[in-house]
Amino acid sequence: MTERLRRDTDSRTRCGAPCEDGGMDLPASIRHRAQAQLAELVAIPSVSAEGLGLHEAAAAVRALLDELGLTTELHETDGAPVVYGHLEAQPSHPTILFYNHYDVQPADPLPEWETPPFQLSERDGHWYGRGVSDDKGQLVSRLAGLHWYKEKHGSLPFGVTFVVEGEEEIGSPNLADYVAGRADQLRADGCVWEFGGVTASGRPLTYFGLKGIACIALRGRTASHDLHSSLGAVVENPIFRLASAVAGLRDDDGRVLIPGFYDGVVPFTPAQEALIEALPDEATELASVYGVDRYIGGVTGTDFQRQLLGQPNINFNGFHSGYGGPGSKTVLPATAEVKIDFRLVPGQDPATVLRQLRAHLDAEGFTDVIIDELETHEFAARSDADHPFVRHTIDALREAYGLEPVVYPSVAGSGPMHPFVEHLGVPVVGMGCGHPGSRVHSPNENVRVSDFDTSVVALLRLLETYGGGS
Amino acid sequence: MTERLRRDTDSRTRCGAPCEDGGMDLPASIRHRAQAQLAELVAIPSVSAEGLGLHEAAAAVRALLDELGLTTELHETDGAPVVYGHLEAQPSHPTILFYNHYDVQPADPLPEWETPPFQLSERDGHWYGRGVSDDKGQLVSRLAGLHWYKEKHGSLPFGVTFVVEGEEEIGSPNLADYVAGRADQLRADGCVWEFGGVTASGRPLTYFGLKGIACIALRGRTASHDLHSSLGAVVENPIFRLASAVAGLRDDDGRVLIPGFYDGVVPFTPAQEALIEALPDEATELASVYGVDRYIGGVTGTDFQRQLLGQPNINFNGFHSGYGGPGSKTVLPATAEVKIDFRLVPGQDPATVLRQLRAHLDAEGFTDVIIDELETHEFAARSDADHPFVRHTIDALREAYGLEPVVYPSVAGSGPMHPFVEHLGVPVVGMGCGHPGSRVHSPNENVRVSDFDTSVVALLRLLETYGGGS
Repeated sequence: MTERLRRDTDSRTRCGAPCEDGGMDLPASIRHRAQAQLAELVAIPSVSAEGLGLHEAAAAVRALLDELGLTTELHETDGAPVVYGHLEAQPSHPTILFYNHYDVQPADPLPEWETPPFQLSERDGHWYGRGVSDDKGQLVSRLAGLHWYKEKHGSLPFGVTFVVEGEEEIGSPNLADYVAGRADQLRADGCVWEFGGVTASGRPLTYFGLKGIACIALRGRTASHDLHSSLGAVVENPIFRLASAVAGLRDDDGRVLIPGFYDGVVPFTPAQEALIEALPDEATELASVYGVDRYIGGVTGTDFQRQLLGQPNINFNGFHSGYGGPGSKTVLPATAEVKIDFRLVPGQDPATVLRQLRAHLDAEGFTDVIIDELETHEFAARSDADHPFVRHTIDALREAYGLEPVVYPSVAGSGPMHPFVEHLGVPVVGMGCGHPGSRVHSPNENVRVSDFDTSVVALLRLLETYGGGS
Repeated sequence: MTERLRRDTDSRTRCGAPCEDGGMDLPASIRHRAQAQLAELVAIPSVSAEGLGLHEAAAAVRALLDELGLTTELHETDGAPVVYGHLEAQPSHPTILFYNHYDVQPADPLPEWETPPFQLSERDGHWYGRGVSDDKGQLVSRLAGLHWYKEKHGSLPFGVTFVVEGEEEIGSPNLADYVAGRADQLRADGCVWEFGGVTASGRPLTYFGLKGIACIALRGRTASHDLHSSLGAVVENPIFRLASAVAGLRDDDGRVLIPGFYDGVVPFTPAQEALIEALPDEATELASVYGVDRYIGGVTGTDFQRQLLGQPNINFNGFHSGYGGPGSKTVLPATAEVKIDFRLVPGQDPATVLRQLRAHLDAEGFTDVIIDELETHEFAARSDADHPFVRHTIDALREAYGLEPVVYPSVAGSGPMHPFVEHLGVPVVGMGCGHPGSRVHSPNENVRVSDFDTSVVALLRLLETYGGGS
């Protein structure tokens, strides 16, 4: 996943044994095959940011889809290929779309890995390796559920489509065009999104929305080269210019001050709002995890969830200019740069936001500040909370975990969900084998094997109840 | 020099041959001795920031002062020792104090040096090496002038005192106490400051004031560790906090907004103001050198000089937080830091300014922003423009260069001049062998050999007219 709500709490033992209600256990043969598949995929360092191993990983994924009996194709894009796999539904059965990705984040910093990142390692009930959670482990869990269904029921009556891309970790620059151009091939009744898992308290979580995102850099230059800082009496300072621009972008309560930014923002529907109201109160516990005394705007309880999951915002990822070493250095830097991401909600267009930002900067006297558009631009997406596919997912999770699922109408992170919702009109749900300590994008990325098992149980139940009609 | 007004223009051929009026040429024996002395000093990598070679350099300097016939002492401080050398004045003759330093800046970045930094190299009429201008070359030029005087006149009738410290490049943390504690040993009638040279147009320059300085860092922390940027909807951002604090520290015209900052600021005296009025109009030419379209406040001409040389200001040396690599990274950093230097004028106390800053930040709601005091804290100093020592210096420069000197009542840079003016009550003037392309603190630091020669001629004339009474 590029973007999501990460909650870096310590992992805890899940309360309640899996499968209490369903009484299902993942067969050893299914898990062994999954583990072997995962080991094969993890061993391919398919780092999209570095353009490494992508064709090799795509070929390996294609072979896994072939093994499942799907008709597969490699669809070239302007970047890494998409692995497409399809099985036609039998009459009166729905088609389920799986979106996953075979690319991973870089493994840096390498010294912090306890075992090699591109080697699947098992210890203390965890699988470790780059991609075991994000997203190769999730992909393999989908395959495991489908294999299990076939073993148990003899065949797959429902339709299956896989879209496994190789550029998710660099912002899926080609996916929207891909989905729009192949809407006929991708038509489905429900889509299982690439990630999911359990909360810190062990409850399964699901969601059916993501925020949009627009990443930019603001750059300022005030001289042709760095100067001695004594000239700061007469030569403008790029840090001051950018800091002044930054200070005018939001207020102390987090409200974005760019005119028009909130135009068209779509509020939660009554059904989504009801889900917000039903969420557990996580604000206080998370404050101690994050080490904060107070949230922006002083929000607590449900308002915390509403602001986090439902409100667009601006965030500053980095500010770099001049000297940053020990002690002082009396330099007047010539340039400064600040990196920014906007988190957007339905009704906001990344391109419009950037036009509004330009107009705002110009109006505030910052015509000299340059906006660099970075690669990540995504629309927000929210699926309908009342769709049968959504309801079946929630029921399957409840049954598999023996605990009431935590249901987010949207998470705070972003991803390429919008083209699926927009071009395919398909409800999208998140579920999977992650946990809050999975360390995605970090060293020692891991999943708990027990979580993997239960996530496959949950998927089987969804396939049986929604796909197979049992 | 730690701090000065650097004008990094291309060097130009000085108009007017040296010594047209005085008719003096530096004897070859004097220059050869100076070159050998400089080669010896440059070969010692006395980098105070790294604590390297300081005692070795101090011993070498002491030997050079011994060679001149001075009584020398090594004065230990809490840091690097001060090399002290003294010759008592004959009756009715003045004593001249020379302030120099034997420490240098680090040589980084090494690959940019065309010849090894710690080896004196001569090519195309320049000497290259770390310290050839700042400050070992200047020190050697003082020795050359004194040796020449002795050769020419048989002995030194005037008194000579050398204070050669080893911590100038790290802010002279022990010099104020040193000077205060040894005021009796350092008593003098005039002080030749460590650096000087010629302007871009080849005119000799002198000055008798420096700005003060206070270096600080502001630090902010908003979480215990970096978080995923999607949490920016609820968790405060340290870049926004510090940017907001920075934006409130000055206005668009450069005026510092900290209450009390300008209290007690001493304006130029009428004599100093007359010097400002007489300065060449450098603003336009320097704007193209610096690559700026407009100065802060839109100043031009004399107002440019007045703002640069006479007004205190705030400058931002660096701002660092979060991600600064290519593309985007959706991180919410936990910490941010901005490095700041205040340039002060007479009447301002660095400690008072920092108290005013704290009060201002608190009043503006930035109680969470931490102020780190860095090592460099110096009061401003300005000598009397009408003192005979000052007038003799100007005359000696005019005579040696055959051009009207450019006389700055103060330069925009800073240095440890205040204790000399405050505790010794001595007028201080700057002169020396530098030029605008000397690249002090940078790779390929250099002096032009012709500038070295003429600077020694000028010093000899000062020694003869002010010291010797001829």
